[in-house]
Amino acid sequence: MIVLLTDFGYSDVYAGVMKGVCAGIAPRTPVVELTHGIPPGDIRRAAFQLWSAAPYFPAGAIFVVVVDPGVGGPRRAIAAHAGGHTFVAPDNGVLTYVLVEFPLERAVELSDPMYHLSEVSATFHGRDVFAPAGAHLAAGVPLAQLGPSIKDPARIALPRLEVASSDQLAGEVLFADRFGNLVTSIGRLRRTEKRVRLDPWLPGVESLELPAPGSGVRLPQGDRIPFERSFGAVPHGEPLAYIGSSGMLEIGINRGNAAQALKLSSSDEIVFEAAR
Amino acid sequence: MIVLLTDFGYSDVYAGVMKGVCAGIAPRTPVVELTHGIPPGDIRRAAFQLWSAAPYFPAGAIFVVVVDPGVGGPRRAIAAHAGGHTFVAPDNGVLTYVLVEFPLERAVELSDPMYHLSEVSATFHGRDVFAPAGAHLAAGVPLAQLGPSIKDPARIALPRLEVASSDQLAGEVLFADRFGNLVTSIGRLRRTEKRVRLDPWLPGVESLELPAPGSGVRLPQGDRIPFERSFGAVPHGEPLAYIGSSGMLEIGINRGNAAQALKLSSSDEIVFEAAR
Amino acid sequence: MIVLLTDFGYSDVYAGVMKGVCAGIAPRTPVVELTHGIPPGDIRRAAFQLWSAAPYFPAGAIFVVVVDPGVGGPRRAIAAHAGGHTFVAPDNGVLTYVLVEFPLERAVELSDPMYHLSEVSATFHGRDVFAPAGAHLAAGVPLAQLGPSIKDPARIALPRLEVASSDQLAGEVLFADRFGNLVTSIGRLRRTEKRVRLDPWLPGVESLELPAPGSGVRLPQGDRIPFERSFGAVPHGEPLAYIGSSGMLEIGINRGNAAQALKLSSSDEIVFEAAR
Repeated sequence: MIVLLTDFGYSDVYAGVMKGVCAGIAPRTPVVELTHGIPPGDIRRAAFQLWSAAPYFPAGAIFVVVVDPGVGGPRRAIAAHAGGHTFVAPDNGVLTYVLVEFPLERAVELSDPMYHLSEVSATFHGRDVFAPAGAHLAAGVPLAQLGPSIKDPARIALPRLEVASSDQLAGEVLFADRFGNLVTSIGRLRRTEKRVRLDPWLPGVESLELPAPGSGVRLPQGDRIPFERSFGAVPHGEPLAYIGSSGMLEIGINRGNAAQALKLSSSDEIVFEAAR
Repeated sequence: MIVLLTDFGYSDVYAGVMKGVCAGIAPRTPVVELTHGIPPGDIRRAAFQLWSAAPYFPAGAIFVVVVDPGVGGPRRAIAAHAGGHTFVAPDNGVLTYVLVEFPLERAVELSDPMYHLSEVSATFHGRDVFAPAGAHLAAGVPLAQLGPSIKDPARIALPRLEVASSDQLAGEVLFADRFGNLVTSIGRLRRTEKRVRLDPWLPGVESLELPAPGSGVRLPQGDRIPFERSFGAVPHGEPLAYIGSSGMLEIGINRGNAAQALKLSSSDEIVFEAAR
Repeated sequence: MIVLLTDFGYSDVYAGVMKGVCAGIAPRTPVVELTHGIPPGDIRRAAFQLWSAAPYFPAGAIFVVVVDPGVGGPRRAIAAHAGGHTFVAPDNGVLTYVLVEFPLERAVELSDPMYHLSEVSATFHGRDVFAPAGAHLAAGVPLAQLGPSIKDPARIALPRLEVASSDQLAGEVLFADRFGNLVTSIGRLRRTEKRVRLDPWLPGVESLELPAPGSGVRLPQGDRIPFERSFGAVPHGEPLAYIGSSGMLEIGINRGNAAQALKLSSSDEIVFEAAR
């Protein structure tokens, strides 16, 4: 299975052409679209989305990730095995979050032109380099054959997440989703009856437990919103914080759009405050 | 075949993750996307779209419908056989229109955790409950095994449609489509040479026939637009009413956008007036 | 393989319903979506996108193209063999660019109702005529069986492209893509170390070679932007012209949106000026 994740959107044929290329090289391999709606060039968002989605795909899935604002420049094209999957991508850090969670088993630079299309443009490596690599891998070509081994895939900065005090976790908004729910860097959280447990998703943060009832989230402008189990715990139109589907703290509004109403966006600082 | 209908949009990986879950449970079942573009939480629109699309899918299709503003709350998760298809959905009325047309054969509550993912979040039952149910059904698990039988799936209010007088049908705008064409509740209509025949799609309305030539539609602000066979019957930029592809009366503008130009939207009342 | 290209967008079930119809007629044929995001009724853009994408699909692909503002009117529905592919479309010129590049081998009018759905609406031939034709072809029905042969598929006007002087090529903006990059009619170009070679994609223009270094593009308002190999050749936020992935001259901004920043759109004239 080839899984596509790009910022190509839905108004052009770029993503569709990648499917044509895959069908020509690996006609029996199903191609699944994860999304083509990553904002143009938003490597961090793509890195997060890939990390959150990959565990839900069967072992052996080949992810072809094309968020590639440096196309045509010196950045390498790479493929990597990690966590039972294969990832094909520009070497711009878009695999950072996946590689924090799953140890890198092997990576290569996609430098052998035999596995590119016969002509490689300066602007569309999704078609000319990445889709062919993914499809050749799906058709059985071993990773090592695509190019020389590399040890140091590029990394982007990790989001902010820190234990600010014995009852405070400071983090940042990562992005707003389609519903206006704000996904934050504070995670991964699990809730039991009376406690919230932090199982850190980033290196350098220790696990800890905090009391759940009475906890809340402090917004940059000072407002505090309650930490609840699900949307229905607050009236329509009211904000809440909750543990989202990736285990990250999220901020939403019951039947509303938190990003718009609270005027929060990527990189804004938020603080989880446990009840004392 | 699993058919997905959601309000998850195209900018996140929510819909894509559902495909990963399906592939893990029922790897040989094709997954078809009906749309993920239902406006967030718009149960009525999803109910209509599902009703209009389902008859065009082969018998045995499994529709997984996730428009679920009450996720995490007390609403049930259900699956139902009707009209030769299977429908998996939150029990919030999104199956209402389908169940008006196709008698309910059997329905169950999706309460057996063996057919959920091992962890069920409070916010993403599309991934944790509905996609697994659809995929297990596709893989051969009988409906009855997913949970106890239920008899009373939730219903939403049906749209307005009434015979206002011997030559008038009153209804309402349901929604505007991508082209700005306004789909209304007045249907189902068929046109012969000189007559329009109403075969009611909702209970409580009788069939009737009205003269077609000279008929028109009265808009809320008083304007009357002609009832025609197709867009080409009026000049570019001019409005018309016509029988849309679902058999419902629609209002459009030839090579224009009626929703914008006429300032009409969901729930606005319109009246079909037959020529006297 | 059936490949769909439409202007149906992603908020309605129109495109999804076409997939249901295909699955009913040709259940084993994979359906691939090229895009449904063509702007409503934009025949020229669809013609270009189809031309640019078709060569990347395996031989024998059946393209079902539904950009059909004249649906329900007198325009024919046709299917054609050309360039190793089959194209099913309204006869409104949407195949023009494909047929400039690939000689028409055979075309028919889709007039045999046996290969339509049993009821044909006045507004949705994608569902009632084009998807069924594509699926019947995929299932093995010969082209000639779908209707009588035609020789004269409709053509739209070709874009402007002319050799304005010994060192100038005049053309026009065709459209802006998702990234705001402006695709123009000046092509097809190839670049070697010191030369740009024009291999005309339109009839009536001769091949020629121009010096590459120092060349640029003159915009309607008089500004001149440099012709470079790729985005990275200019600083972030700066405009450039380059050879795009279809071989056409494109205008972009490194990590920016040229359509917005330069206020250029379809039909605006631009001139490629070689260094003297």
